[in-house]
Amino acid sequence: MNLEEKTLDNSVVYDGKILKLVLKDVLLPNGKTAKREVVAHSGGVGVIALTKDDEILLVKQFRSPYEKTVIEIPAGKKEPGEDPLECGKRELLEETGFTAEEFIPLGELYPSPGYCGEIIHLFLAIGLNKSNQNLDEDEFLTVLKTPFSKALDMVMSGKICDSKTMVAILKTALFKANRKV
Amino acid sequence: MNLEEKTLDNSVVYDGKILKLVLKDVLLPNGKTAKREVVAHSGGVGVIALTKDDEILLVKQFRSPYEKTVIEIPAGKKEPGEDPLECGKRELLEETGFTAEEFIPLGELYPSPGYCGEIIHLFLAIGLNKSNQNLDEDEFLTVLKTPFSKALDMVMSGKICDSKTMVAILKTALFKANRKV
Repeated sequence: MNLEEKTLDNSVVYDGKILKLVLKDVLLPNGKTAKREVVAHSGGVGVIALTKDDEILLVKQFRSPYEKTVIEIPAGKKEPGEDPLECGKRELLEETGFTAEEFIPLGELYPSPGYCGEIIHLFLAIGLNKSNQNLDEDEFLTVLKTPFSKALDMVMSGKICDSKTMVAILKTALFKANRKV
Repeated sequence: MNLEEKTLDNSVVYDGKILKLVLKDVLLPNGKTAKREVVAHSGGVGVIALTKDDEILLVKQFRSPYEKTVIEIPAGKKEPGEDPLECGKRELLEETGFTAEEFIPLGELYPSPGYCGEIIHLFLAIGLNKSNQNLDEDEFLTVLKTPFSKALDMVMSGKICDSKTMVAILKTALFKANRKV
């Protein structure tokens, strides 16, 4: 079955600091046309940092879209063209003050593919060393060192709802079950 | 530590069919102000439907933001005020032609909390019965009946990247490991 939609035209409705909103005219497989609203984004990186004592570093920050604090792994926006690993190292250091000896790729994540084009790259960081936290001027967050088993409980019980954080913790749990880390 | 941002003003930049783009002026904890770009969305529901033969129903469809097909669990947009469970039943039936005897809540998911306000509700559906697929007019998709173990491999190897699908499969894997389903 042919599923492809061909883009006939697109217009940028809004071009901002974090995202771009694009309105597309597409040709459907049945020959009809439709509109697609697309949020374009340069991508993100999330890092699950596991200590020798089997704890992970979580960050709690206020998230305007939900008007409340949300618990997440350290993460940030990738600059266009920036290498995901370099971005991950930078964000881990800036947000938590830790560097890591090894970054294991945990794959990519599409947050909400119906309308959002962001790709989030995930890494598992091990061999942590304390350095200095260096937040952006308008960034306010609290770092929570949390036992891995407790973080997994928080995912399963709904206290952690952020998609990249859920996937990173759940994938790490399976890696741990298979004794890969 | 006070993390709260107070919204001082907001303006709707775009109000579309799927999403709304809102530009906010916020007061930061340090007394300075900042802009926040927020994608508002009425929410979504995803359903992981598990057959008696330990297979799940996946749907493959073209996703305009990535300009390619993406493999996902059956899912759809919640109408404002609609009950998540009713939405999940409807989307499962429309997209796959299956009804289910039981829907077990798998919690909520925030796709990308930095700028997106969508909440995706997840359910595990069991006791499936075949009825009739009923796609929207501009909806084109293929249903893939996939052994659960293969779907889990697809998550771990990066063939499945959609966040709600990853979380639903990974959470179900842990439930199965604990013999809850």
